[in-house]
Amino acid sequence: MAIIKNKSPVLFFYNNSKKWLMNISKKESLHTHIGVLKHADAIGKEYGSRLMTNKDKYVYLLEPTMYDYIMKIQHGTQIVYPKDLGYIAARAGIQDGQKILEIGTGSGSMTSFVASIVKPRGHVYTFDVDENFMKIAEKNIRKSGVSKYVTQHNLDLKTSKETPVTDMDVALIDLGDPWIVIPKVRQMLKGSGSIFAICPTMNQLEKLTMALVENEFTDIESTEHIIRTIEAREGKTRHSFQGIGHTTYLCFARKAFFGRTVKSTKAKATTKAKATTKAKATTKAKATTKAKATTKAKITKKSTKN
Amino acid sequence: MAIIKNKSPVLFFYNNSKKWLMNISKKESLHTHIGVLKHADAIGKEYGSRLMTNKDKYVYLLEPTMYDYIMKIQHGTQIVYPKDLGYIAARAGIQDGQKILEIGTGSGSMTSFVASIVKPRGHVYTFDVDENFMKIAEKNIRKSGVSKYVTQHNLDLKTSKETPVTDMDVALIDLGDPWIVIPKVRQMLKGSGSIFAICPTMNQLEKLTMALVENEFTDIESTEHIIRTIEAREGKTRHSFQGIGHTTYLCFARKAFFGRTVKSTKAKATTKAKATTKAKATTKAKATTKAKATTKAKITKKSTKN
Amino acid sequence: MAIIKNKSPVLFFYNNSKKWLMNISKKESLHTHIGVLKHADAIGKEYGSRLMTNKDKYVYLLEPTMYDYIMKIQHGTQIVYPKDLGYIAARAGIQDGQKILEIGTGSGSMTSFVASIVKPRGHVYTFDVDENFMKIAEKNIRKSGVSKYVTQHNLDLKTSKETPVTDMDVALIDLGDPWIVIPKVRQMLKGSGSIFAICPTMNQLEKLTMALVENEFTDIESTEHIIRTIEAREGKTRHSFQGIGHTTYLCFARKAFFGRTVKSTKAKATTKAKATTKAKATTKAKATTKAKATTKAKITKKSTKN
Amino acid sequence: MAIIKNKSPVLFFYNNSKKWLMNISKKESLHTHIGVLKHADAIGKEYGSRLMTNKDKYVYLLEPTMYDYIMKIQHGTQIVYPKDLGYIAARAGIQDGQKILEIGTGSGSMTSFVASIVKPRGHVYTFDVDENFMKIAEKNIRKSGVSKYVTQHNLDLKTSKETPVTDMDVALIDLGDPWIVIPKVRQMLKGSGSIFAICPTMNQLEKLTMALVENEFTDIESTEHIIRTIEAREGKTRHSFQGIGHTTYLCFARKAFFGRTVKSTKAKATTKAKATTKAKATTKAKATTKAKATTKAKITKKSTKN
Repeated sequence: MAIIKNKSPVLFFYNNSKKWLMNISKKESLHTHIGVLKHADAIGKEYGSRLMTNKDKYVYLLEPTMYDYIMKIQHGTQIVYPKDLGYIAARAGIQDGQKILEIGTGSGSMTSFVASIVKPRGHVYTFDVDENFMKIAEKNIRKSGVSKYVTQHNLDLKTSKETPVTDMDVALIDLGDPWIVIPKVRQMLKGSGSIFAICPTMNQLEKLTMALVENEFTDIESTEHIIRTIEAREGKTRHSFQGIGHTTYLCFARKAFFGRTVKSTKAKATTKAKATTKAKATTKAKATTKAKATTKAKITKKSTKN
Repeated sequence: MAIIKNKSPVLFFYNNSKKWLMNISKKESLHTHIGVLKHADAIGKEYGSRLMTNKDKYVYLLEPTMYDYIMKIQHGTQIVYPKDLGYIAARAGIQDGQKILEIGTGSGSMTSFVASIVKPRGHVYTFDVDENFMKIAEKNIRKSGVSKYVTQHNLDLKTSKETPVTDMDVALIDLGDPWIVIPKVRQMLKGSGSIFAICPTMNQLEKLTMALVENEFTDIESTEHIIRTIEAREGKTRHSFQGIGHTTYLCFARKAFFGRTVKSTKAKATTKAKATTKAKATTKAKATTKAKATTKAKITKKSTKN
Repeated sequence: MAIIKNKSPVLFFYNNSKKWLMNISKKESLHTHIGVLKHADAIGKEYGSRLMTNKDKYVYLLEPTMYDYIMKIQHGTQIVYPKDLGYIAARAGIQDGQKILEIGTGSGSMTSFVASIVKPRGHVYTFDVDENFMKIAEKNIRKSGVSKYVTQHNLDLKTSKETPVTDMDVALIDLGDPWIVIPKVRQMLKGSGSIFAICPTMNQLEKLTMALVENEFTDIESTEHIIRTIEAREGKTRHSFQGIGHTTYLCFARKAFFGRTVKSTKAKATTKAKATTKAKATTKAKATTKAKATTKAKITKKSTKN
Repeated sequence: MAIIKNKSPVLFFYNNSKKWLMNISKKESLHTHIGVLKHADAIGKEYGSRLMTNKDKYVYLLEPTMYDYIMKIQHGTQIVYPKDLGYIAARAGIQDGQKILEIGTGSGSMTSFVASIVKPRGHVYTFDVDENFMKIAEKNIRKSGVSKYVTQHNLDLKTSKETPVTDMDVALIDLGDPWIVIPKVRQMLKGSGSIFAICPTMNQLEKLTMALVENEFTDIESTEHIIRTIEAREGKTRHSFQGIGHTTYLCFARKAFFGRTVKSTKAKATTKAKATTKAKATTKAKATTKAKATTKAKITKKSTKN
């Protein structure tokens, strides 16, 4: 039986739009539109208990889950929502022990979610270039209790020649121009490893899909996820009048090898040759077709053996 | 670099509707409408490589993920789909180390998915009454590599007076009449613990919601999840013409305590007593009219300490 | 070329949420958050022209369509939305010359829409019991220019023994308990005529469907209609972040004859008798238990000649 | 009471996927998988009656509506579906008496639908270039009984310098490249008149929207319409497992005037000149690169008086 103590994290829950996540601090009070609660009154209670505010409203003392941490991060930043995070985990088959690459840490909500699944034997390597965001993310990741399973890198993988990690099981990309990093991501992924990119626009899906084909990915799938809330009440069950709008589209793919198999010693030389040939071919084609306009980013491939 | 060996699991992937999951067996061949492949040819290849069938079709040798195991189970049984499983994990905040109760093992797809997330320190306790299904589930769970983290119970929690497990973090219910087991589930859940029920009909959502309110659950939320596939192609991006239909609705809630606090020594005794009484009451009510039982059967609660 | 004159109706259009529908009155001004416009300045302009407010915002002078009248009615009352109205018209095949029965005039928005399609040779007979609503509806119908094609009746078809109109092509029902009037509606519809009922809840669909089967309707179809707005912009096309929620479900059916044919002279008498009996039966049943009434009350029919 | 005679049109309705629309021909029979029916047996029956096939299946004799004619046309061609047609009618406020321009007659299903609403005082002017399609359309329009209200033109409005009709209330465009005809359509529409374009891809919406802005349209709105079927059954109500996929997106707009007002006498001459110039410009641009034409070709407008 889990009892709330001083410093315990608690979700003060009134309803889905009125809820407050904080650590108990015995001298403090929670001031809200629905009344005031003393933290001290929560101490000693079992999680799930309720308190009454001075305005006679019941507030539940819930034990925060990863969902609650993510939804709290939401305030003020663009997050990836649970409906989308859940599909990412289920479609990519994310599980304990995996190594995850994340490009675009943002506020750290996806980082925390994924870390909570791959822990304790897996790890999340997350990259960002915005130092302010990195600090916010660090704080959010710490609060959600998964810092130990996350390494934050301040590195621009769009331009960097380094390959700080390799053999990743899954790569998550949350950038405005995800197609730029695909060749790099390919080097960092294990064979058959998965990619998921967060794409708020259809144009991103389109450009990214072309880049994925060019970079030898298979099982490419673009989806969108609509969650609808149902108000289930005796004799009056119906969907909620309040609509839930678009958040993002998602693009999934798995790393494959399109080329012929070569002997491993010769491999590098041959690969190089092939890479150049293909690059040229693509370039040529692109010159005539529209592809150029949209992809532009000319990515020279030096090896395709990763 | 993961190399395919004899006995390695491989997803032979042609496209999303033509794919075959099996273990490599060096003397066997895969016979399909798109041609024949010798298993032996896959041995020594890196995951992600492709082979050509004798009908000149490329088939990719992918490393199976939990998603692939779940989608394979799909054939012949009603499964919970990844879009729904993902939301369950994300909304309930399922993560490493948790103890999960599942009522209705079915074919074991949800069991396997959840086990892959809570492992290695968590565990899934799953209950079913159909011995045939239990054998199928056992096989599926073993194939997906998570047997170590799952305990299967052949016990009818609708009628049983036993409480084989307690202090569960999350309870997953996949029964036609989930409301029946709510009082029992409540006893098995920790305070603030979550429930998710798979409800294919609106009527189930309605009855279940009433039972959840009666049994002191909060943060009750019914949702449905629509996944739409987008065909992203240069200059022709649009949603897929192929529609994706209804699978199930989902009902979520968290265990709370509505009542006054009673002394902890007396609490246990009372709880036990109540548990028995309530079980009977529900069963009896059910015997006469189900509808009545859930809508009207006002069960007087003397203690809410479980 | 249509020129705006004094008293012409004009939709002052800034954007989809800021628009004002009124008749030009040369001495008046339109005062809004985006500035002031003098009606007089619109006079002599072609529809489609724009004026600039004193806050430098352009406002378009559009010629109001039936859509604009309906959306104006929206303010303050529950209306049937264009997405739903459109499907009603298309599925029931509403067209010029038809006779339409409407039960539940409400604010008159569906009345006006349907009248604009069946005119000039068709007619809408609309019934309501709320005199205040009837006055509001009358005003709205007049404003939208279709009064000539609409007859308003103050009569409760749930209880009335009269059958003021017959041989209707289509019946539209917007009541909380549409199943009550189905036997009556049947008498008023021509053979093979269509019904459309506005059902905000799933429970209504369920009860109504049972009543339709009992009352010999075929081609029964329940649907819901989701409209999603797309923001099409160069290189940034995506669905709108603003969600659009549930409005109503719709239930369609066509009047059929299940039974043996009886002689027409006897038919009428029997019909009348039946109507009365059934009305009573239903009312009585309702008094005891609603659920029972609709689900079980098997009403033996001797004639199906209405 | 409408009685079926020889030559009467009848929809033989078994269920929504098994139904046959034909004219009664007293010596013929209907042969189906669910048995055989003699047309002669339908003669003398009231619409809505049913017949039993020699395989003991009931088939209803329904009076065909415009919906039935449209759904019959569906077989073998790409049609605009009732869910989309309905919204077009409701959003554009199509009603009796209007003049409708249609570019891309196709199989004539949208033509017939719209004609059935604008008749008897309105008219549909429909343009196509494919003579085979025009014949099919003619037949379909005749069958649905609205030939009198439709004029078919064999003319390519993408290239033609003629303006065969003007002062249209609504323009419906069903072309692969709708943006090409926007300047032409503008000339043919009355001020404040509406456009609706059928756009199966997101890319079309994007290009068209840019063309609409350039050509001084306002109230631009892109939407998609999802219809979901609900299986309403006692105690088991849920959405249909069978999904309904994407059909098309729709783009709506209204003709406005962005520019300064010019004197009406001069206006006409200028308009004509511009019309010619613009037509040329567009054609030329198209010859080189389509993408460029729509996205970049900034056409300087000197007058906006059409």
